[in-house]
Amino acid sequence: MTTKAYGAHAADQPVVALDIERRAPGPRDVQIDIAYCGICHSDLHTVRSEWPGTLYPCVPGHEIVGHVSAVGGEVHGFKVGDTVGVGCLVGSCKHCASCDEGLEQYCTNGFVGTYNGPTADAPGHTLGGYSQQIVVDQDFVLHIRHPQEQLAAVAPLLCAGITTYSPLRHWNAGPGKKVGIVGIGGLGHMGIKIAHAMGAHVVAFTTSESKRAEAHKLGADEVVISKDPAQMQAHAGSFDFILNTVAAPHVLDAFTALLKRDGTLCLVGAPASPHPSPSVMGLIFGRKAIAGSLIGGIAETQEMLDFCAEHGIVSDIEMIDAQEIETAYERMLRSDVKYRFVIDTASM
Amino acid sequence: MTTKAYGAHAADQPVVALDIERRAPGPRDVQIDIAYCGICHSDLHTVRSEWPGTLYPCVPGHEIVGHVSAVGGEVHGFKVGDTVGVGCLVGSCKHCASCDEGLEQYCTNGFVGTYNGPTADAPGHTLGGYSQQIVVDQDFVLHIRHPQEQLAAVAPLLCAGITTYSPLRHWNAGPGKKVGIVGIGGLGHMGIKIAHAMGAHVVAFTTSESKRAEAHKLGADEVVISKDPAQMQAHAGSFDFILNTVAAPHVLDAFTALLKRDGTLCLVGAPASPHPSPSVMGLIFGRKAIAGSLIGGIAETQEMLDFCAEHGIVSDIEMIDAQEIETAYERMLRSDVKYRFVIDTASM
Repeated sequence: MTTKAYGAHAADQPVVALDIERRAPGPRDVQIDIAYCGICHSDLHTVRSEWPGTLYPCVPGHEIVGHVSAVGGEVHGFKVGDTVGVGCLVGSCKHCASCDEGLEQYCTNGFVGTYNGPTADAPGHTLGGYSQQIVVDQDFVLHIRHPQEQLAAVAPLLCAGITTYSPLRHWNAGPGKKVGIVGIGGLGHMGIKIAHAMGAHVVAFTTSESKRAEAHKLGADEVVISKDPAQMQAHAGSFDFILNTVAAPHVLDAFTALLKRDGTLCLVGAPASPHPSPSVMGLIFGRKAIAGSLIGGIAETQEMLDFCAEHGIVSDIEMIDAQEIETAYERMLRSDVKYRFVIDTASM
Repeated sequence: MTTKAYGAHAADQPVVALDIERRAPGPRDVQIDIAYCGICHSDLHTVRSEWPGTLYPCVPGHEIVGHVSAVGGEVHGFKVGDTVGVGCLVGSCKHCASCDEGLEQYCTNGFVGTYNGPTADAPGHTLGGYSQQIVVDQDFVLHIRHPQEQLAAVAPLLCAGITTYSPLRHWNAGPGKKVGIVGIGGLGHMGIKIAHAMGAHVVAFTTSESKRAEAHKLGADEVVISKDPAQMQAHAGSFDFILNTVAAPHVLDAFTALLKRDGTLCLVGAPASPHPSPSVMGLIFGRKAIAGSLIGGIAETQEMLDFCAEHGIVSDIEMIDAQEIETAYERMLRSDVKYRFVIDTASM
């Protein structure tokens, strides 16, 4: 089955219209007509070979929403017409300790990414959501229960949403907890909304005074300009948890100093060059931790989608046509988007 | 009350015999005739002003064991003749959240260190255990239940013992858990003994093949030469917890790579210059953490002493006279001690 897609033929080539093949749905497969696909910074890193190992042609996209257009004979729980989503994973070993616990993103044998992952399908690696159709194992398809008119804005929940939801849940953000969100971008703006909905006292950290009002509107109880030592000092030793969404290298000690005893600074962005080495004394005095977290498992992604539907949470998006992807990448690099681009696949 | 002690008059002066004053025991004080005092690397850092803020004269020593020689009128639980110990703390605010939870080492208002801490006593800062007597608030005195003949070897439990016991307990070392101990020195040799007694599967990491047999004798189930990538790779993704006692700067990624999902690498040594910045990807893939831990609270220190008495655990020591402290420092800097020097205060 041939479907329209957008992707690149090489690291130094732009994202252009392509025709790609999708497999016919197997007994356990769900075929999805993709309505919208969000643009994640990982798409850019991969398509331009900024991370090692990109296979071409490369069709990025792992914030996928659409409607079921066919199902295999052994598919339970999905039927034609259902509104569904696909995130960063389309496969895993299903039998390691992490898979057994529903944490497929940590699959010991390596999960299959929605793009650039290993597959028997042509061309030998997975092709992502910048396309009009995709066929996915039912175990990696999610139900979307938001109203249809919100569907485009739901797309970024599949990566930006779960990447912030999962650590906020894991480290128990909720009533009585003081939670920091560092960076107000694609991930950070979701983190603020979700932590607020979880009932935590949310403090947003940004370097730009201009984002103060927006951060409050997103749900932040307080906004701290992280470049201002006096504002930072006022929060010393007071946070249960800080979620740091900033991938640019920066001094982590400024945030570990704000943690309470036994607090955790969780990083969800990987810098291209290392952060300055964190102070060990800053961890020892207070039994503090610096941790990382990767997206979320399938069950937790469903939980997140349902939580967001219940609380009326979607992403703040700017819709684009597929022809504008390269322009969107350039604007994303300048942080010139509030807060996520989403491709309307009808434009393909 | 004048007592004999050893200390330094300035950062560039050797540790020499001094006469110091101790306060008369107040109603809640315990006066202790010190029998032995261990030598900790912190003593050296402080007495030579390698850390900022040393006040002189400086009398180091926070691995103190001895016998009660007087008690104040309101002292409960200690009587003259009792065998007791004092560790790194002789005071704290007693009313902050950490003190309320028995975690005085994380006192929000700052604990009082056994030396170089604030005090109303002359000379205005606390003087430590390189001395024949000390007077301590009963809340910071520990009972020692080991046999008398082991007393000198108990001294290092008060710092090296609790510094390893506390994180091993906090991160649940025990049966069914695979625990790494990095570095086989003053701290590491205690970590191996304690983790083994807790029932964990213990893997000792060392850079020197020569320490293999000793590590097994201390209780290690396996010994890994951390310079050998093949040996390290064989343990990839397998540890629940790794306690890293090495203060010299080194590549932490080599150890985070050995953690299971949700595993923690806990640092108890603070390097003089930073470790190479740890890989963020190495934390994200596996939701791993790098944490720190500082000694232990008073209740936990008593628990550790009782645990060690029950399991027949003491430190491996080399006894010295007070006149040999400077020589001991030089040997300690060359790691030429198995594994802890202890001063016999009778030599003063």
